[in-house]
Amino acid sequence: MDVLVLGTVAFDDVKTPSGRRKKMLGGSAVHFSMSCRLFSRVHLVSVVGEDFPQSYIQFLKERNLCLSSLAIVKGRTFSWQGDYCQDLNSAQTLKTELGVFACFQPRLARGQKRIKYLFLANVDPDLQHYVIRCMVSPRLIALDSMNYWIKNKLSSLKKVLKNVDIYFANEQEAKDLSGEISLVKAAKALRSLGPKMVLIKKGEHGVLFYSDKFFCCLPAFPVAKIVDPTGAGDTFAGGFMGYLSRRQSLELPVIKNALAFGTIAASFNVQGFGLERTASLTLGELKKRMQEFKSYVCF
Amino acid sequence: MDVLVLGTVAFDDVKTPSGRRKKMLGGSAVHFSMSCRLFSRVHLVSVVGEDFPQSYIQFLKERNLCLSSLAIVKGRTFSWQGDYCQDLNSAQTLKTELGVFACFQPRLARGQKRIKYLFLANVDPDLQHYVIRCMVSPRLIALDSMNYWIKNKLSSLKKVLKNVDIYFANEQEAKDLSGEISLVKAAKALRSLGPKMVLIKKGEHGVLFYSDKFFCCLPAFPVAKIVDPTGAGDTFAGGFMGYLSRRQSLELPVIKNALAFGTIAASFNVQGFGLERTASLTLGELKKRMQEFKSYVCF
Repeated sequence: MDVLVLGTVAFDDVKTPSGRRKKMLGGSAVHFSMSCRLFSRVHLVSVVGEDFPQSYIQFLKERNLCLSSLAIVKGRTFSWQGDYCQDLNSAQTLKTELGVFACFQPRLARGQKRIKYLFLANVDPDLQHYVIRCMVSPRLIALDSMNYWIKNKLSSLKKVLKNVDIYFANEQEAKDLSGEISLVKAAKALRSLGPKMVLIKKGEHGVLFYSDKFFCCLPAFPVAKIVDPTGAGDTFAGGFMGYLSRRQSLELPVIKNALAFGTIAASFNVQGFGLERTASLTLGELKKRMQEFKSYVCF
Repeated sequence: MDVLVLGTVAFDDVKTPSGRRKKMLGGSAVHFSMSCRLFSRVHLVSVVGEDFPQSYIQFLKERNLCLSSLAIVKGRTFSWQGDYCQDLNSAQTLKTELGVFACFQPRLARGQKRIKYLFLANVDPDLQHYVIRCMVSPRLIALDSMNYWIKNKLSSLKKVLKNVDIYFANEQEAKDLSGEISLVKAAKALRSLGPKMVLIKKGEHGVLFYSDKFFCCLPAFPVAKIVDPTGAGDTFAGGFMGYLSRRQSLELPVIKNALAFGTIAASFNVQGFGLERTASLTLGELKKRMQEFKSYVCF
């Protein structure tokens, strides 16, 4: 099944203890696509400026992404600058320039409105809500957000959460939005806001999944050297959503495998700067590391 | 198989967001015993003062612990005061009074010297080494330590580590002793100090196990409310060592089950102050939660 993703296509400038890279291709929609494409045809809903290089467009096309709804407009592409030198678990954002994303109003091609699997990466909750309303009969809607929207657009965020099936939150967002210290209690509290499934991402410490039917937890895949964690959460979401769309089921064994595939995809992402490692990732590599992960975790 | 544990028997005074308890029975050897006793006969090697209540002795006897090497001497029992109000993951130690533990020189009964499974809880590495030398032909020696010994008795610690099979370290100790940020690299570095198996405890984030033969990682069992984490690491070690001694094997499936039993035992420990929850813990309860954990983790 096809998957539609709303998110940024960006220039990333990243500094980590392993070095620095400037003007890398990045953004939530791109990182999501790098893992999701291994399972499904991915449709990008985003915008870039006239400064976006043709080589990057080519790069995305070569990865079989549908770019019908990637608008190219006058102005500058969204760009982000971050520094992980103090702590690999969270970047210090040095600069965010929305550029053309500031006035972005997505236009979906007719066929895309009928796509069943939808991932709304971390953008303005009003924009997320707008895209939901465009869809004809979505089967599964997942949403990611960030502390910025919890602080500055709480009512919009709460409104859109009533209309999604899965909420991806990181640990701090889950605690902030729920007011709970315990992640188990936080997951239950977030469930009560609307989403039937809540997924709390704990970075290097793994993931919790909560629904009325079941509960899962997985550690992260242990990586000896984290080079650049940028996009790990979106790469996780891409593996998770891609696998779900391929299997077309929400049964427990499928959810667990989706969590594991997301975990493995994210583990490749952090092993290189930007898309260095995921640009060439194959399903074979993913499945091979999945077996290794199984041997580490299952008892 | 019997298990011998060297560690403290103590009075604990603990403050957490759930409340405060004074002069609770605690100490590393006691917490270890509460889970280990579910699998094996546990022999306590420790010392208490004349102020140690008869009711506490009775409590330990009723849990089938062998107290032949629990010395009762003139002076005050080891006591510890800690405050978790800022962070449930690490206590602020307000007071440690060694009391009679300061001059403790263990004397083991003859039969105890032939015990095959040995756990050296976090005490002076010279004392740990002394007890190793007392043993006749131990099969498995495990050791726990703390940052205090890394800072103040590094050469003694390194010396004793050459003589143990399993090293239990928490995350910060593993990083400090190895000089590595990555836990995977830290585990390998600690392995090179001597112990064939390295176990890194990450508290609420689970555990990593490393040996030349295999690698495992498990999340913690998710608990909705952590009341008091004191002794969780020792309770984990007790479940782990108890299960290994019962199974008498170090094959991968046995190690994994031992890690899971340790994890589950620790999850009960944190649900009450001190020994509130583990004093009455049964193997049936442990196995029941183990099944639940399996359903959360294995895919």
